[in-house]
Amino acid sequence: MNKQVNTAQTILARLGLTADVLQGGNLTVTSPVDGAELAHLAETADMDAVIARAKVAFRDWRNVPAPRRGELVRLLGEELRAAKDDLGALVSLEAGKILSEGQGEVQEMIDICDFAVGQSRMLYGLTIASERPGHRMMETWHPVGPVGVISAFNFPVAVWSWNTALALICGNPVIWKPSEKAPLSALACQVIFERAVKRFGEDAPEGLSQVVIGGADVGAAMVASKDVPVISATGSTRMGRAVGPVVAERFGRSILELGGNNAMIVAPSADLDMAVRAIVFSAVGTAGQRCTSLRRLIVHESIRTELVAKLVKAYASLPVGSPLDPATLVGPLVDMDALKNMQSALAAARVQGGVVHGGEPVTEGVPAGGAYVRPAIVDMPEQSAIVQTETFAPILYVMGYSDLDQAIEMQNAVPQGLSSCIFTLNMREAERFVSDTGSDCGIANVNIGPSGAEIGGAFGGEKETGGGRESGSDAWKAYMRRQTNTMNFSDELPLAQGVKFDI
Amino acid sequence: MNKQVNTAQTILARLGLTADVLQGGNLTVTSPVDGAELAHLAETADMDAVIARAKVAFRDWRNVPAPRRGELVRLLGEELRAAKDDLGALVSLEAGKILSEGQGEVQEMIDICDFAVGQSRMLYGLTIASERPGHRMMETWHPVGPVGVISAFNFPVAVWSWNTALALICGNPVIWKPSEKAPLSALACQVIFERAVKRFGEDAPEGLSQVVIGGADVGAAMVASKDVPVISATGSTRMGRAVGPVVAERFGRSILELGGNNAMIVAPSADLDMAVRAIVFSAVGTAGQRCTSLRRLIVHESIRTELVAKLVKAYASLPVGSPLDPATLVGPLVDMDALKNMQSALAAARVQGGVVHGGEPVTEGVPAGGAYVRPAIVDMPEQSAIVQTETFAPILYVMGYSDLDQAIEMQNAVPQGLSSCIFTLNMREAERFVSDTGSDCGIANVNIGPSGAEIGGAFGGEKETGGGRESGSDAWKAYMRRQTNTMNFSDELPLAQGVKFDI
Amino acid sequence: MNKQVNTAQTILARLGLTADVLQGGNLTVTSPVDGAELAHLAETADMDAVIARAKVAFRDWRNVPAPRRGELVRLLGEELRAAKDDLGALVSLEAGKILSEGQGEVQEMIDICDFAVGQSRMLYGLTIASERPGHRMMETWHPVGPVGVISAFNFPVAVWSWNTALALICGNPVIWKPSEKAPLSALACQVIFERAVKRFGEDAPEGLSQVVIGGADVGAAMVASKDVPVISATGSTRMGRAVGPVVAERFGRSILELGGNNAMIVAPSADLDMAVRAIVFSAVGTAGQRCTSLRRLIVHESIRTELVAKLVKAYASLPVGSPLDPATLVGPLVDMDALKNMQSALAAARVQGGVVHGGEPVTEGVPAGGAYVRPAIVDMPEQSAIVQTETFAPILYVMGYSDLDQAIEMQNAVPQGLSSCIFTLNMREAERFVSDTGSDCGIANVNIGPSGAEIGGAFGGEKETGGGRESGSDAWKAYMRRQTNTMNFSDELPLAQGVKFDI
Amino acid sequence: MNKQVNTAQTILARLGLTADVLQGGNLTVTSPVDGAELAHLAETADMDAVIARAKVAFRDWRNVPAPRRGELVRLLGEELRAAKDDLGALVSLEAGKILSEGQGEVQEMIDICDFAVGQSRMLYGLTIASERPGHRMMETWHPVGPVGVISAFNFPVAVWSWNTALALICGNPVIWKPSEKAPLSALACQVIFERAVKRFGEDAPEGLSQVVIGGADVGAAMVASKDVPVISATGSTRMGRAVGPVVAERFGRSILELGGNNAMIVAPSADLDMAVRAIVFSAVGTAGQRCTSLRRLIVHESIRTELVAKLVKAYASLPVGSPLDPATLVGPLVDMDALKNMQSALAAARVQGGVVHGGEPVTEGVPAGGAYVRPAIVDMPEQSAIVQTETFAPILYVMGYSDLDQAIEMQNAVPQGLSSCIFTLNMREAERFVSDTGSDCGIANVNIGPSGAEIGGAFGGEKETGGGRESGSDAWKAYMRRQTNTMNFSDELPLAQGVKFDI
Repeated sequence: MNKQVNTAQTILARLGLTADVLQGGNLTVTSPVDGAELAHLAETADMDAVIARAKVAFRDWRNVPAPRRGELVRLLGEELRAAKDDLGALVSLEAGKILSEGQGEVQEMIDICDFAVGQSRMLYGLTIASERPGHRMMETWHPVGPVGVISAFNFPVAVWSWNTALALICGNPVIWKPSEKAPLSALACQVIFERAVKRFGEDAPEGLSQVVIGGADVGAAMVASKDVPVISATGSTRMGRAVGPVVAERFGRSILELGGNNAMIVAPSADLDMAVRAIVFSAVGTAGQRCTSLRRLIVHESIRTELVAKLVKAYASLPVGSPLDPATLVGPLVDMDALKNMQSALAAARVQGGVVHGGEPVTEGVPAGGAYVRPAIVDMPEQSAIVQTETFAPILYVMGYSDLDQAIEMQNAVPQGLSSCIFTLNMREAERFVSDTGSDCGIANVNIGPSGAEIGGAFGGEKETGGGRESGSDAWKAYMRRQTNTMNFSDELPLAQGVKFDI
Repeated sequence: MNKQVNTAQTILARLGLTADVLQGGNLTVTSPVDGAELAHLAETADMDAVIARAKVAFRDWRNVPAPRRGELVRLLGEELRAAKDDLGALVSLEAGKILSEGQGEVQEMIDICDFAVGQSRMLYGLTIASERPGHRMMETWHPVGPVGVISAFNFPVAVWSWNTALALICGNPVIWKPSEKAPLSALACQVIFERAVKRFGEDAPEGLSQVVIGGADVGAAMVASKDVPVISATGSTRMGRAVGPVVAERFGRSILELGGNNAMIVAPSADLDMAVRAIVFSAVGTAGQRCTSLRRLIVHESIRTELVAKLVKAYASLPVGSPLDPATLVGPLVDMDALKNMQSALAAARVQGGVVHGGEPVTEGVPAGGAYVRPAIVDMPEQSAIVQTETFAPILYVMGYSDLDQAIEMQNAVPQGLSSCIFTLNMREAERFVSDTGSDCGIANVNIGPSGAEIGGAFGGEKETGGGRESGSDAWKAYMRRQTNTMNFSDELPLAQGVKFDI
Repeated sequence: MNKQVNTAQTILARLGLTADVLQGGNLTVTSPVDGAELAHLAETADMDAVIARAKVAFRDWRNVPAPRRGELVRLLGEELRAAKDDLGALVSLEAGKILSEGQGEVQEMIDICDFAVGQSRMLYGLTIASERPGHRMMETWHPVGPVGVISAFNFPVAVWSWNTALALICGNPVIWKPSEKAPLSALACQVIFERAVKRFGEDAPEGLSQVVIGGADVGAAMVASKDVPVISATGSTRMGRAVGPVVAERFGRSILELGGNNAMIVAPSADLDMAVRAIVFSAVGTAGQRCTSLRRLIVHESIRTELVAKLVKAYASLPVGSPLDPATLVGPLVDMDALKNMQSALAAARVQGGVVHGGEPVTEGVPAGGAYVRPAIVDMPEQSAIVQTETFAPILYVMGYSDLDQAIEMQNAVPQGLSSCIFTLNMREAERFVSDTGSDCGIANVNIGPSGAEIGGAFGGEKETGGGRESGSDAWKAYMRRQTNTMNFSDELPLAQGVKFDI
Repeated sequence: MNKQVNTAQTILARLGLTADVLQGGNLTVTSPVDGAELAHLAETADMDAVIARAKVAFRDWRNVPAPRRGELVRLLGEELRAAKDDLGALVSLEAGKILSEGQGEVQEMIDICDFAVGQSRMLYGLTIASERPGHRMMETWHPVGPVGVISAFNFPVAVWSWNTALALICGNPVIWKPSEKAPLSALACQVIFERAVKRFGEDAPEGLSQVVIGGADVGAAMVASKDVPVISATGSTRMGRAVGPVVAERFGRSILELGGNNAMIVAPSADLDMAVRAIVFSAVGTAGQRCTSLRRLIVHESIRTELVAKLVKAYASLPVGSPLDPATLVGPLVDMDALKNMQSALAAARVQGGVVHGGEPVTEGVPAGGAYVRPAIVDMPEQSAIVQTETFAPILYVMGYSDLDQAIEMQNAVPQGLSSCIFTLNMREAERFVSDTGSDCGIANVNIGPSGAEIGGAFGGEKETGGGRESGSDAWKAYMRRQTNTMNFSDELPLAQGVKFDI
C-alpha cells in the first residue's frame, strides 16, 4: 500500500504536480485502485475571469497562422511522448485502467497531435464555380472562439487532446473542465502543455489552455456563457440532455459524446476464436467503463451455446486486480457507487429472466479499498428494459437471433447510437451491416469490436449518444465557423437567379 | 380589383388548387397586395398520422438508390420549369414580392434541383488510411429519416426546395409546415411535386413529401417528435430560440436559419455607382423583408454625405405599388402589423438621434388594402439599440466610420450573423474583410450586396442567425447520418494505439 | 434485307443526317450487321481550320460562367433523352451491338450530362491555411483549352459524351475524331448537340464541338497540335503507345483508355448462378468487344469442372444473330478482320494447350454479310502468351487456381490493367481483392462483372491501359489547369520557410 | 581557402560522409564557392540491382499501414531538425546558395515531413452513391511502386524530400538520382534517412530509399525501366522533353518540374517599396537560379522609370560574395558555364535593343575560383526572343505595359508556365490575375514574388514547365494508383444504365 502511494507521489512530481497544487483545497481525489487520497484540490472560483482570459487569448491566437499553431501542437506531441510513461501511469492510478490502456490512451493523444499538425496546413475550404461573370466564390473556415471541454473520468486525457489539438490549430483557446474524479490527469496535461508553450515562444498567448477544477457549477458557467461558442461535452446522456438545450438556447454549438449501448452481432460464419477475444477485450477492457464498451451480444442461435460457454470460461480466468500490476486485465470500477449500480443491474436482469455468470465483487487478491468485480455475462431471453439501459460496468448481455434482419433490428432498438459491430466472414452480411439499412450507430465495424477507434476516423454517435464527432475526418470543422464569400471583380452587378432590379 | 382576383383564381387553378382545397377551412389566406381573401384552408388535424406516414415512407425511400432518387428531383425540376410563371406569380400574390423576384425564387428552386441531381451520384464519404494491417476504414453517409421543414412567408417556396431537393436525394421524406401567411404556395408546390412523382413511378412511396397547414401547434408537434430527426426551421430568432432547445433535448438535429442584421461597409475606394445600385436592391428588394436584406450601412466619413444624398434621391424615385405591375420595384409589406412595426422602429430611431428620410405609408397609386410604404433611410449618430434589432421592413440605417478596424467591429457588434459585405476596390480591405479577423457572418461578400446568394454556396449564418447551412457546399450532410467503419479482413485482432490485451 | 436498309435511312433522317452529308465522299461506312453500305462520307480536309476554330471558341467559352455552361449540357441531356431510341438504334446499326446495349450506351450519355450539370456548380478547388500572417492561399481550377477526343467503334457515342459533358462545363471546346468504323453516330451526336446549342442561345460560340472525319492523318494532326492541350484517346494499346509520346513531347496532357485483359476470379464460396450470369454477360456482351469485356476466368480448382460445364451449356444456347432483333444476345463482330483475328487466337490457344468450346463462325439464321460467331470458351492449362494478349472478340480463357494469392498473382500478371473482379461470398477474400495487395487494375469489383461501370466512378486503368480516368469522381480535373494562389493582403513581405533576405 | 575546406570536411563528417565514401571515384564534386574539389565519388554501376532492390522493398513496404509509414517520416523530420545546420551549410557549399537559403531549404524538408505525417492518416479516397440497390461504390488509393526522383543542383535536397515524404507514406520506395553537381547533399540525406530508419525498426525494408550517383546514363536507366512506375524529374525543359516521351511510351507516369520564365506585373497602384523588395529577392535570390526566379518585369508605363531607378540602385548595393558569409545576399553561379551563358544572354539582349544595368563578373572581394556576377537588370523595348528564353542566371528583363489585358497577354506569351505574380492594391486587377482569363501559370500570386512557395500548396506549372505537381494539396495522388470498386452484396445482378441481358 505505502509503496504504491509513494509511487503516486513520484509520478505526480515528475509530472510537475507539486504539493502546493495538490493540497489545501476541498476537492478530494481518491484512487479507484485502493481508495487512497491522492490530493485535495482547490476549486476554480472565478469562472468569469477564466472565460475572459480565453476571450483575450482568442483575439491573439486567431492571428497566428495555422501552420504555426500546428507547431505548438507538434511540440505538445513531443512533450507527450516524453511524458508518456508517467502520464499513462497517472491515468491508471486515477481512473483505474490497466497500464497498457493508460499508455494506449496517451498514445492516442500523440496520434491526434501528429494528425493535427498535418491538418494545420490544410483546413481546406472550397473554391466554387460562380454563375455570374467576373465573380469568384469560395467557402472559408475561420477560428470561432474559446472551446469548452467537459470530459469524463474514463478517458481522463485523450478526450481533452482530441478537442485541444484540433481547437488549437483551428485558432481557438480551450477551457477544460475534467471529471471531478480525474482532475490530476488534467493538471498534469496542463503542465505538459505549458512545457510545449515554453518551447514554442511568445506567439502563444496566456490562457490558451486552462483547466478549471470543480463540480457541476463550474461546468454550468461555461455551458451557459455566450463567450464560449463551442461546448464539447463527454459524459452521460443525462448530462447531455441538460447541456444541449442550454447551449442551443444561446445559439452555441455542442459536440456531445454521450452514452453508448454497443452491440456485437455474431453470425454463424464468424471466426469464433477471434470473436471471443474481441468480445472479452471490448466488454471487459477498462472494466466495462468505456463509452464504447461492448454491452450487448446478439448471437446466432446456432452458435449461441458454444459461444456463451467459451465466454464463461474465458471470463472465469480473467485476472482481476490492481491495474498497476502488469498481469491484470480487469482493474477496479471507478468507485463503490459504480459497483452498486452494477449489482442493481444484475438484479434487474435476473428479474427480467437473465441467467448471470460472474459479476460478483472480488475482495481477495486485490488492493483493499477498490471496487473490484468479476465481469458478468448475462444470458437474456430477450432485449428487455435493463438491456436497453447503459450500465457503466462490465456486464455483457447475450441474446439470440435467427436471421440477420432481426439481429440488425435488435442492434438498432436501443435509444443510444454510438458503436456496433458484426463478426461474420460472409461479405453480404458484412456489407449489409454497414449499409443504409444496417447499423444506425456512428461507428459500425466488421470483425473488430466496438471499442478502440483509430483517431483517423470521426468518433461519435447518433440518437441519445448526442450526434457529436471528434478526432479525424472533418471533425475539425466543428471548431471553426464557415463563411461563404462571393467576390465581384467585374464592373457589373448581376443578380443571382436572373433577377432584374434596375433603378 | 375584381380582375386581379380572377387572375389569382386562374393561377391557382392552373397550379391544380381547386375549390375543394381552397375553401371550407378556418385558416384565411389574404394577399398582401390588396388584402383580398384568397382561400380558407382546413388545418392539419392529425400530425401523428402525418409523421407516421413519413416514417413508413422512409423505410422504402432509403432503399431506392440515390441516383434514382435524383431522377425524381430531376423530374421535379422539369415540372418547376413548366410551372415557373404560375408559381412565381402565386408567390407575388401571396407574399407580395415583385414579379421578377417571384420568378427568381422559382429559378432558385430549379437551380437547387439541378445541383441535387448531380449530387445524387456523389454523396461522397471517405476511405481513410488505417493504422492496422488488413483493416480498411471508411466514412459513409446514410439516410437519417423524415425532415421537418418550417418556412417563412418571405421565401415561401425556395426554402422548401433547398431542403427538399437535398433531403430527397439523401433518402429522406419531408414534412413541410409553411408560414400561415403563405400556405397556398406550399400547396402548389405539393401539386407540382406530385406531378413529378407520377412520372417517376412507383419507387416513390406515398407520403414522401407532405404539407401540413396550421399554426404554432402544428409546427410544435413536428419539432417535438423523435420521429423527425431533422428540423430545418427558417424564421425569427425568437422562433429559433424556442425550437433549438426542444430539438436538442430529444437529441434531434436543427438547421436554423434565423434573423439577420446585415451590413455593408462602403470604403473610400468603392465604385459608388455600383454601391448605390447594390444598396437599393438589397435594402429595398422584397420590401426589406429578406433575411438577407441590407439593414446597416457603414460608410467611410469621407463619402458619407455624398452617398446618403445619392440614396435619398434614388429612394425618392422608387416605384412603390402592386407587385403584379411589372414597373413596380417596391411591393407591399406582408401585413399591417409589419407596417406598424416599421413605424415604431422609425420612431425609436428618431429618439435615438436618427434622421429619417422616407418611411411614410403610401396610399396613393397603390391597391387599397395593402401595407405600402416608402422605404426609409435613417442617418444615425451611432449603432444604437434600434440598429442592433432586426425590423422586417425597408429601413436602412446609415453610420459613419473612419478606419476599417472600426468598421469591421461595428459590422460584428450585433447579435445576428447572417450576411455582410464590403464595397471597396482596395484588395487589402477586401481580403481583410473575408479573413479570420473580418466579418463574423456566414456570408461575407465583396462588391455585391448581402442578399441574393447563389445556390452553389452554403447558405446560413452564425450567432443568433442559428448556425444552420442549407443549399450548396456540403450542406447535404445535415440530411444524413455519418458512420465510421472499420473492416478487419485479416485473421488477427490488433488493437489501436498499440494496446495489448491478451486473454 | 431491304427493309433494314430502309430502317437505317429512316433513323438517319430522324437524326438529321441528310443525303448531302451521307453521300459524295470517299469514306465508306458499312454496317457490321450485314455489310450494307450506309454512307460515303467526305473526310475533313483542313485540320488547321478546325483547330483554329476551337481556339477562338475557347476564348469565349471560358468566359461563360460554369453553371451557365452546365445549362448547355442540361439541354444536351434533354435532347439525348428525346433522341434516345434513334441514336441507340444507330449505334446498333453501325457498331453491331444489340438494341438493349445501344440504348444503354445512350443512357450513359444522359447520366453523364446529369452528373456534369451538378458538377458545373462545384468544380471545387481548395482554400488552404497559409503559414504567413495576412496571406490567403487557394487552389483554383481554370479552363485549359480545346480537348481532342479520339474514340473507338465499340463505344461510338458514350466515350464522346463522357469527355464532352465534362470538357464543356470545364470551359473547353471539343474536337472529336470518331472511329472510321462509326462516324455516323458521331455526326448524329453533332446534330443533337446543335439542337441543344440552338435552345441555349448565343452564349455558345461557334465551333464549341466539332466532328472531324477521317483516318489516322486526321487524328495525328490533332495529337501533334500544341493548340489542343488535352488529348483523350480511347483505343488499342498500340495506338496509345504512339499517341502518348507525341503528346508528352509537346507537354500536352493525355487521357488514355487503352486495352484491357480483364479477369474474374471465382472463389469456392461464389454464388455460382450469379457468377454464370455475370460471366456470360461480360464475356459475350457487345460480342466481347468491350474494353472491359471479360477475357480471363480464374476459377478455384474445386469448382472448375462444374463452372465450365455450366458455361459451355449456357454458351451453346446463346441466340446469335442480327443485333436489331430483340431476341438476339450476340451480335456480329465489327468486321471480317475481327473474325479472322479471333480464329487466329483460337488456333494459337489450341497450340498452347487450350481446349476450345464454341468459337466457330455462324452463318445460318444470321444476316449475310456480317461476321457472326459463336462465343468461345477455352480451357487453358496455364496463362500462356495468347491469354496475356487482348483479342477483341468473345473468347473466354479459363484457368484454375488453388489459393487466393496465386489467383491474384495471375490476375495481375498481364500487361494491361483495366478491369477485374472476384466472385466470392467470403469477406476476407473480397476485401483482400480490393486492398493494396489485391487487383492492380483501375477497376476492381466484387460479385459483379468487370464491365458496365456506373458513371459516378472514375473509369480507366493502369499499366498498358494507359492510366487515364474519365467520367465520375474528380476526372473533371483532367480538363482543367490547376493554379496555386497566394494573396498577400498585409503590408509585410515575409518569406516562406523563414528565409531572411533584407536589402 | 584552407580554412573553408576544413569546414567542409567537418560538415561532411558530422553528416556521416566519411573518406571512404568521398574519395576514390571518378565523379569530381566541386564547390561553386571557390571551385574547391569536395569529393571524388564512385558512380553507381549496377542500376538493375538498384531497381530490383526497390522492387523487393515495395512488396514489403506497401503492407506497412500508412500511419505507421508516417511514423518513419516523422522520425525523418526529427533527424532533419537535428541536422538542419549542417545540411543547410552543405547545401550552401555544394550549390552556392547563401546560408539563410540553405537553412530555408532544409526547413522546407521539415515542413513536408510534418505535412506528410498528418496525410498518412488520410490518403482519402471516396465512397460514392451507387445507382444499383445492394451495391456499394468507392474509390481507393493504393501504393504504386518505386518512384524515381531526378533532382537539379539548385534545390539539391528539398525536391527529394517533397517526393520522398509523400512517396513513403503512399507506400513506395524511392530511387534518387541527384544532380552530378550536388551529389554530396544527396548522400548526406541518405545518411539522415538511415538514422530515421534505424530508430523506426525492422518494418522498413532494405532499399526503401536509395541514392544513385552518376550522369545521364544512370538517369536514363531509371527513366526507361518499367519497374519504376513514377518518374519525378526536376530540371530543364530540354531534359523533360527527353524524359516525358520515354516514360509515356512505357505507360509510366511523369511528374515534370521544368523551366520557368516567371513574370511580375507591377500595376500603378502597387506598394512600390514592397514590390522592390519582392523583386530583388525573387530575381536575385539563389543568384537567379531558382526555377521560380523572377525573370520578367512587366511594369505599368506610368511607374516604369521610377521603379527601374529604384531597382538599379538596389542592385548596385547588393553584397556579392561567398555564400558562407552571412552578410552576402548574392552567391556564385553554379559554374563558369553558367556565367558564360549569362553573358551570352546579355549580349543577345543588347542586340535586341536592351539596356543592361549590371551583369558584369565580380572578381574582387569574392573567393577565387567561383563564378560571381553582379545581377543584371535589362530594360527591354519589347518581349523579344531572349526574354522568352529561360537563362539560369540573375537577369531581370523589364518591359512596359499600358493596360492590364496587354500585361496579362505578355505574361502568358512565353512557352513556360511555372510562376507569376502581380503587385497591385486594386482588387479588380488582383482577382482578374487569378481568374480564368488571368495568368496561365501553375502559380499565380498577388503582392508576393513568384518564388518561395509554401509546402501546403501544390507546386508546379503548365506548358513547357511540364504539368507536374508536388508537395501540398492532393499532389500525393501522383504517387498512388486509383481504383474504382463496386461491391455487390445483394443477390441480384442488375446492369448499369438499365441494360437487359437475360440468359
